[in-house]
This record gives sequence, structure tokens and C-alpha cells, in this order.
Amino acid sequence: MSETNADDIDTADGAAEQAESGTANEAIMEATYRALCTHGAADLSVQAIADEFDKSKSLIFYHYDSREDLLSSFLAYLLENFKNRVAASEITDPVTQLDGLIDSLLYGPDDNESFQIAMLELRSQAPFNEAYREQFRRNRAHVHRLTARVIDCGIDDGVFAPVDPDYIATLLLTMIDGARLQLVVLGDETILDTTRAAIDDRLDATLFAEQRPSD
Amino acid sequence: MSETNADDIDTADGAAEQAESGTANEAIMEATYRALCTHGAADLSVQAIADEFDKSKSLIFYHYDSREDLLSSFLAYLLENFKNRVAASEITDPVTQLDGLIDSLLYGPDDNESFQIAMLELRSQAPFNEAYREQFRRNRAHVHRLTARVIDCGIDDGVFAPVDPDYIATLLLTMIDGARLQLVVLGDETILDTTRAAIDDRLDATLFAEQRPSD
Repeated sequence: MSETNADDIDTADGAAEQAESGTANEAIMEATYRALCTHGAADLSVQAIADEFDKSKSLIFYHYDSREDLLSSFLAYLLENFKNRVAASEITDPVTQLDGLIDSLLYGPDDNESFQIAMLELRSQAPFNEAYREQFRRNRAHVHRLTARVIDCGIDDGVFAPVDPDYIATLLLTMIDGARLQLVVLGDETILDTTRAAIDDRLDATLFAEQRPSD
Repeated sequence: MSETNADDIDTADGAAEQAESGTANEAIMEATYRALCTHGAADLSVQAIADEFDKSKSLIFYHYDSREDLLSSFLAYLLENFKNRVAASEITDPVTQLDGLIDSLLYGPDDNESFQIAMLELRSQAPFNEAYREQFRRNRAHVHRLTARVIDCGIDDGVFAPVDPDYIATLLLTMIDGARLQLVVLGDETILDTTRAAIDDRLDATLFAEQRPSD
């Protein structure tokens, strides 16, 4: 009984261990979220994350090599959460899909101000940290592809005018980025609604251009 | 001779001292710029600024109470530089003025990447630092007013359609903010030109709406 063999565990209980590892990982990610909200990203230590975690700091280092590895994995975790939310929404109509996507990106699933500040701090570290920058690029590329695909579906369905989906996706994401930056930096609460209205105007003038009555 | 009276200097040489103080201040601001480029904003010390300055650290503290006071004054100095550049441009035609303003805000007078990163770090500190946030707000408000005024002049001159200048200014500055964020965070060099093209499209569809031949 006391001579359990690590290799046996690996093979016989592989699936159970994997599930447990997934649970541990989820718990680490949730602890990271709470630590980012409490301490920000600029000087966040693994110890501060461990303090939010009911297991030991060594378990964190069992899963992640370093603070950088943990935080870039956290960015990947945010992308997975985003994918899961989109997959769960079951909407197939491109107009409603695009509308929901814009709202979700602009207003966010999470209006926790401390978290938004921490994410801006992490962004400001990206130029020095290739792991963060690479993951921010992956997240952006995914959101961009998804937005362009929804626009493309709408064009195929004949509900959107034949625009360049990549160009419109870039434009939308740039406006959303700018609005969220102003919200966090200047504390300007009105910017999200103004930007939403501006996006609607822009889409009316392009995606729905052929449906509009001419002036 | 050796008994110079401080009060006499203040009155008799007031103008000269003021000019010298202006020069010292300009030298401190230039040292701050160089220190931000070298060290970033996150952990910038007054000593690091003094190291870029050919006079003593105590002269910096003679002019500024603290690191926060110095850095928020630096943000005000950036605004003054911007005002001087705009005032020096002597362009009075609203179309050319708006075009130059957008280029100057989007591409910046300074394409030094290290400086842009430092400014993003300083932005990410704004939510915790009322002095930075307040100065960022002042800078934004000035640029917004200037943009809206140029649009307003164009409407008065009959070269722009009767749009809401504040709304268009907000939209333009939001797009520019978003583009510059992507440039710094993701290192995406193409975003500035794409955004410039998108802004031109947007202006064609609104400001120049009445001048466009209908489809």
C-alpha cells in the first residue's frame, strides 16, 4: 500500500489524474484572476497567486515553469473561456451573431475595473515579454478570424453587403480597443455607448449599405 | 559683492531668473524623455532622470515635489509641445488641417518605440494615480476640442456636411487610440495605415457625404 508506484498511477489512473490536473489548473487560473484583481499585474508574484489558492505554491510550479508561463497560460485560458461562451450561444443568424460579438467584446463578460486595469498592465509588458505578446497576438487573431467569419457568413446569406470581412473586422476591433483603453485610463464611462453607436452607424453605412433607402 | 540679497535678485533679475528657470525646466523635461526611453515608466526613479541631466538631482526637486509631480508635468509638457506644433503649422484650410491633425495623432511626431511603450506604462498607472489621470484627461480634452473645432470650421465653410463635431472627434480619437495600442502591444506595424484608410472611408461617408456622387 505504501509502495505505490508512480508509473502505475500514471497508466492505471491516467484519466482520473488528467481530470484532477484539469481541476487543479482551473483552480490555479481562478486564483490568478483573483490575484490580478487584488494586486494588479505590474508586480504580481507567484506567492500572491498562491495566497489566493487553497493548495500549495509548489503545485503551481508543478504546472507552470515561471510567473511568465503562468500569466501567458492565463491569457490562453481567457481565450478558451471566450471560445466556450461563443460556442454556447447557439445563435446562427449572422446579424444577431455580430451584434452579440461586438457587445461581448466592447462591454466584456467581466466589468471588474481592477481586472481591466491589470490586463492593461499586462498589455504594457507585452513589448518586453515575447510569451505575453505571442498570446495576445493569438487571442487577437482568434477574435479577428471569428468576427471576419461572421461577416463572411452574412455576405453569403445575402444579409450583408459584399464588403472585405478582414477590413471590417480590423476596424471594429480597433474601435473596441480604443474605447476600452479610454474607459480604463481616463475612467470615461460614456465612451462604450458612444462607440457602440458609432459602430452601428459604421455597419449601417457598409454592411447594410444596400438595404438602406438612398438619401 | 558677496552679500548679494536674495530679494534683490528676485526683483532685479526676476526676468532673467524666470528665463533661466524655463531653460532648466526644459532641460529636466528633455532628461525625463530620455529616461523614459531608456528605463520605461513602470519603475522610473527621479535618480534615473537626474542621470540624464547635467545638473544635480536637487535642482529637479527644486522644480518638482515628487516623481508624480514631475511625470504629470511631463504629460503637460507633451501637450504644450503639441499645441506649439499645431500653432506653427499655419494651415487654415479645414480639410488640410484635419488631415494633418489625424496624421500627427496617428503616426505621432515621435516614432520612438521605447517612448511609446513608456507612455502605455504611464497610462496603465493612471487608474491609481489621480495626477496622471487628470493630465491625461486634460490632454485628451484639448485634442478633442481642437479636432471638433476644425470640423466645425469646415462645416461653417461649407466643405464638410453638417455632422456633430464632438461625435466625429470622439470616433476619430477612439480609432487612433485603438490603433496605437495594437502597434505597441502586438507590434502590428500595418495597423496605422489600415486605420488611416478606415478613417478616410469614414470621413468620406460623413464629412464629405454631400459632395459624393450618389451610387
